Amino acid sequence: MIDEALSNRTRPIVGITMGDPAGIGPEITLKALVDPRVLRSCVPVVYGDVAVLRRVAELLSLDLPPSVCIADWRNAGMAPESAIIVDCGVLTPEEVCPGVVSAACGKAAYTYLAAAVADAKSGRISAISTAPLHKEALHAAGVNYPGHTEILAALTHTERYCMMLACDELCIGFVTTHVALADVSRILSVERVYEVIRLTAEAAARLRTPSPRLCVCGLNPHAGEGGLFGEEEQNYIVPAIKRALAEGLRVEGPIPPDTAFLPERRDLTDAYVAMYHDQGHIPFKMQAFDRGVNITLGLPIVRTSVDHGTAFDIAWKGIANPNSLVQAIRYAVQLKSFESMKKG
Amino acid sequence: MIDEALSNRTRPIVGITMGDPAGIGPEITLKALVDPRVLRSCVPVVYGDVAVLRRVAELLSLDLPPSVCIADWRNAGMAPESAIIVDCGVLTPEEVCPGVVSAACGKAAYTYLAAAVADAKSGRISAISTAPLHKEALHAAGVNYPGHTEILAALTHTERYCMMLACDELCIGFVTTHVALADVSRILSVERVYEVIRLTAEAAARLRTPSPRLCVCGLNPHAGEGGLFGEEEQNYIVPAIKRALAEGLRVEGPIPPDTAFLPERRDLTDAYVAMYHDQGHIPFKMQAFDRGVNITLGLPIVRTSVDHGTAFDIAWKGIANPNSLVQAIRYAVQLKSFESMKKG
Repeated sequence: MIDEALSNRTRPIVGITMGDPAGIGPEITLKALVDPRVLRSCVPVVYGDVAVLRRVAELLSLDLPPSVCIADWRNAGMAPESAIIVDCGVLTPEEVCPGVVSAACGKAAYTYLAAAVADAKSGRISAISTAPLHKEALHAAGVNYPGHTEILAALTHTERYCMMLACDELCIGFVTTHVALADVSRILSVERVYEVIRLTAEAAARLRTPSPRLCVCGLNPHAGEGGLFGEEEQNYIVPAIKRALAEGLRVEGPIPPDTAFLPERRDLTDAYVAMYHDQGHIPFKMQAFDRGVNITLGLPIVRTSVDHGTAFDIAWKGIANPNSLVQAIRYAVQLKSFESMKKG
Repeated sequence: MIDEALSNRTRPIVGITMGDPAGIGPEITLKALVDPRVLRSCVPVVYGDVAVLRRVAELLSLDLPPSVCIADWRNAGMAPESAIIVDCGVLTPEEVCPGVVSAACGKAAYTYLAAAVADAKSGRISAISTAPLHKEALHAAGVNYPGHTEILAALTHTERYCMMLACDELCIGFVTTHVALADVSRILSVERVYEVIRLTAEAAARLRTPSPRLCVCGLNPHAGEGGLFGEEEQNYIVPAIKRALAEGLRVEGPIPPDTAFLPERRDLTDAYVAMYHDQGHIPFKMQAFDRGVNITLGLPIVRTSVDHGTAFDIAWKGIANPNSLVQAIRYAVQLKSFESMKKG
């Protein structure tokens, strides 16, 4: 019954996880839930704690439609036509101290995510957009992953995946992300660089143009300048590019990282491959601080996320900007629509 | 006689090294030599090969005042009032293949630089601004330094120095520069980070404001996020910042690298300290591609440079932009004027 209703819908159902309750997650979720850009394009389904959302809504004078909360999706009986909240029932507002790391909040954030992933895997929702979680809180709760992406990979048994940042102007796939800078070189391999080239090309084909042009950054200053400052370019990046070219992908590189993001190169580029977190994050955030979307490529489900953190310093204060979450939902709809087209 | 003339001048004498003859150095030098912004603020003295400059001038229909060439500065008899060229006599135009790496050109570039440094040390010129050299050519010539900065340090017996990038909007000191990314962590130390904080603060006091506010970047993603991705922040950067604060410097950090260069942070910052080459070069070049100046801090002489490379792909074609060299000369004059003020 639900399955039939789902397959006939015009608007996709996008799950939104509330993120760490002590951060700005509840506030931006509430704001996104009533945003016309969201409501026009999808049916949002929030995974969180209704009691916490209600408390934040009261505190900040935000809307929370009271009739849309359910304890369990399965009890809803049919696919929804308007926003609903799946109450995961993990925390009361009294257990949340805004702006403070806690194991309870880390556990709650993980629970919301796991519930959304389960519903995405079973097809109840079409895609997931996630509000930020706090890694120290996760670790305090015994959830030993560096971030969302790795949790999603584990919950969906995915081995080959990567992170992408996207906004209207830039689209960047990452070979490595949340690792110490000193470990980046050790993690690189021809296989991994190739894999991220391929995943990035596939996503750019969905988001940009059918035959996207990729720019692959070097790792070292001046892309190693002929081996003078590091040999990762020759050892890993060049062979990976050759393999991608042999398969017909349009790839250039390794490009010196500090010129890769200049206007001349950007005009020639539909998507980038960055070797490490800040190589891509610095130019991306300079371009699109509050419009960025984080996408996990390679998963069996569509997943997008805000590209900012929990912002504990402004938690529960009414000044958080929901734009990145709104954009994340927009990209989730776009990626999902493409998947439907392919199947149709 | 010369010394007396030098000390009474109103305009400083700025040495300009021609850089690798096979790159865009000769062309941008010729263009800077007749630029009104240069001629108004200083007396330019070029160190290069007159025969090469003449050939490039003919080829590209650029001006080369024929009367101003001398073989040896000492034969000039007195300090110049207008642009001159010190002919180092290393190469003929026939020995230069534009756009091609060669030991001969690497050796020539080194010779021009060494001549300029000797004249700066002896006080014949007030400052040096350098056109780009090519590191592979240098290495082919047996000059085994990673770049200009290290050569200058060696020629002036300087142990504590660092590179800075400057434009009107951004000013960044570097803890490390031309090393493989995998080696950066190994090179960091409390002493080195502190040293670069101090050198950067001194330069920013000359170039910006007497009591500059510094932003020190972390090394790792999210500045290590409490030790989750690397411990260099706690081990090296935090102790160096504490030492600088104890000495009265205005320093904040370690700031997550990807938010350090956003507008809110930039409004609070007069100068940055970056841990590695691309952490600072990526945002700097996005901000100021052809207006950037590279400054070596800590030397006994004032030295500025273009912040671009030899651009072999457009060498001797008439399309090179001299703006970075013109800006380098402008910064050299500004730093020199400050030194004169201090002494006066």
